[in-house]
Amino acid sequence: MKVLILGADGYLGWPTCLYFSQRGHEVIGIDNYFRRNAAVELDCESLIPTSNLFQRQKTWEEISGKKIHIHIGDITNYEFLLSVFKEYNPDAVVHYAEQPSAPYSMMNRDKAAFTVQNNLITTLNILYAVKEVNPDCHIIKLGTMGEYGTPNIDIEEGWLEIEHNDRKDKFLFPRQAGSLYHTTKVQDTDMIWFYVRTWGLRVTDLMQGPVYGLSADESDMDPRLMTSFHYDEIFGTVLNRFIVQAVAGYPLTVFGKGNQTRGFLNLKDTMQCVYLSSTQPADQGQLRVFNQLTEPFSVNQLASIVKKTGDRLGYNVEIDSIENPRVEKEDHYYNVKYTGLLGLGLKPHYLTDKILENFFAITDKYKDRINRDAFFRGISWK
Amino acid sequence: MKVLILGADGYLGWPTCLYFSQRGHEVIGIDNYFRRNAAVELDCESLIPTSNLFQRQKTWEEISGKKIHIHIGDITNYEFLLSVFKEYNPDAVVHYAEQPSAPYSMMNRDKAAFTVQNNLITTLNILYAVKEVNPDCHIIKLGTMGEYGTPNIDIEEGWLEIEHNDRKDKFLFPRQAGSLYHTTKVQDTDMIWFYVRTWGLRVTDLMQGPVYGLSADESDMDPRLMTSFHYDEIFGTVLNRFIVQAVAGYPLTVFGKGNQTRGFLNLKDTMQCVYLSSTQPADQGQLRVFNQLTEPFSVNQLASIVKKTGDRLGYNVEIDSIENPRVEKEDHYYNVKYTGLLGLGLKPHYLTDKILENFFAITDKYKDRINRDAFFRGISWK
Repeated sequence: MKVLILGADGYLGWPTCLYFSQRGHEVIGIDNYFRRNAAVELDCESLIPTSNLFQRQKTWEEISGKKIHIHIGDITNYEFLLSVFKEYNPDAVVHYAEQPSAPYSMMNRDKAAFTVQNNLITTLNILYAVKEVNPDCHIIKLGTMGEYGTPNIDIEEGWLEIEHNDRKDKFLFPRQAGSLYHTTKVQDTDMIWFYVRTWGLRVTDLMQGPVYGLSADESDMDPRLMTSFHYDEIFGTVLNRFIVQAVAGYPLTVFGKGNQTRGFLNLKDTMQCVYLSSTQPADQGQLRVFNQLTEPFSVNQLASIVKKTGDRLGYNVEIDSIENPRVEKEDHYYNVKYTGLLGLGLKPHYLTDKILENFFAITDKYKDRINRDAFFRGISWK
Repeated sequence: MKVLILGADGYLGWPTCLYFSQRGHEVIGIDNYFRRNAAVELDCESLIPTSNLFQRQKTWEEISGKKIHIHIGDITNYEFLLSVFKEYNPDAVVHYAEQPSAPYSMMNRDKAAFTVQNNLITTLNILYAVKEVNPDCHIIKLGTMGEYGTPNIDIEEGWLEIEHNDRKDKFLFPRQAGSLYHTTKVQDTDMIWFYVRTWGLRVTDLMQGPVYGLSADESDMDPRLMTSFHYDEIFGTVLNRFIVQAVAGYPLTVFGKGNQTRGFLNLKDTMQCVYLSSTQPADQGQLRVFNQLTEPFSVNQLASIVKKTGDRLGYNVEIDSIENPRVEKEDHYYNVKYTGLLGLGLKPHYLTDKILENFFAITDKYKDRINRDAFFRGISWK
């Protein structure tokens, strides 16, 4: 299969390139280095030093004998995206190319506008390029579990049949997200669903929970292949941040009561989910939605797990409950269905002691690069 | 009250300026002349020749003794919008400043991207300007009944309580729109709802059906005060187009089976609805949704009404059923609730013979300006 991976420089994008390449597929990676540059500007660079995509591609070729095509450019530029589609005519496109940070989207008007424009125009351009070049190309879109928010009813897998006044219809599950970034993902889904039913495209929308981990089979082959990894308030997510805080001897920053519950998954499982979706694609005219998580945890549970393992490893982990800079429910119902990807063959890597210990061990190697100023800046939702 | 009207050059924007001004309010009108210019470019200009806003403002001042402030600029430019907010500190802002055409949004990638960017960034900027200058300012947003599409269940007024697996929650009514333009309105509502619950803003979202008519009390005072009026495939809506087709001796263009049903309202009732919303504002932290229509009609019903009245007036009206260039359900359930605005005091102008005859009479005065090439161009959804 020929697969186009958008956002190839990212935490998930790069290991996804390697995962497909390792399995014999032709991979074309695109990135505009938005996050790389933003992380420099905001002084929150990756824990792992990552060379540019051309350099990493050479390393990968040296190690595996396999070549990944790299194109640097901005896919909000339709002509650029279209030229790549025409050059390769991919069978599948994996769309990670969005501004992925909730706090970034809440910093000010300019960053909010950038998030809206980047996330929606990238998605629109992909839909148009697929229609123009090959409507049969399968779009695999990274959504987020954050689209659903924390409703007081069970979260189904994308769709909900509603009965109202003795009549029935089926709709996208109601969504109300907790940040502007997450809201752009809701908007993405609405736009995708419109074009799927109008043009008969085939799309898989993966409602992914926060991903954790540093290890993936291919990037573990050589330190030069490691993926970028953010642990800061802006681009990091909670478990990744906790591990780095524990290693740095910085109290774990729990926002508010810490009862906020989300569905998490291991980095290795993201690779599996995207790959399984690509080998068993959505039908034409189908918007297939999967909830991409393997285990729900509350923030307090994660803090407690990290403290327990960290203490055992000699890190003396403290937990600091701080005023929540976000506007979110700190106590809420959370019952989410996630059987679709298991049905495709996902074999989860659950959060075991061994996985945590390995996570600590890799992080420890890079502890001199930890920037303590990046852990908490109190970016306010208000 | 000081009221800022965005999209003041438009079909609804200009008579809304006059309506508020006539009632003693201080009106500030903004427009970037997008539609005026697009209608020239696409050869589908207004039936009524409309002078620029400064000229019409002078006419209004001459007739009424009242002054409307006019600012020409693009509110996707945040600095411009913010400067106007700071200069006037309005009590309410009426947001008509969107690309309003479904066919325009479906013409090609560039026009789709323009629609997304214009409609979402204008809305985002308004939310930010209100928060920055005066969070108490009431935002009156023009949504569209098209956000709901044609579900197989009753359409409630904005919100739906859902019971699922013995638990309940209340959500925005499920929406799936029939064009990219309508989808941007769904996206707008999601974005507004996010900021309403995060920042405690007060917003009324008016889910408006297609508006018809040429007559409004203030603009009827002088022909130079008439509003722009589009009857073409791109910027016109069905009843307005039918009347002009009837006057031109052009067969009424019914798309497909003609059983498509929508909720309509008279131009005069839009004025009332917006005004009533402004004098009885939403609460802080409330997203108040009204379904803004007074009568549902199918396309066939409208064609038949126009033919009947037109024939009686001597126009010899024909009806032409043509292949539907859109992707939409031609047979569907449609039962919509619309009691909220009646509760605020709306006195509907229903589609009577008298109103239709007056509509024909005004249109006939401008019949030499009718551009028959603009009636149908078959802009395809596919």
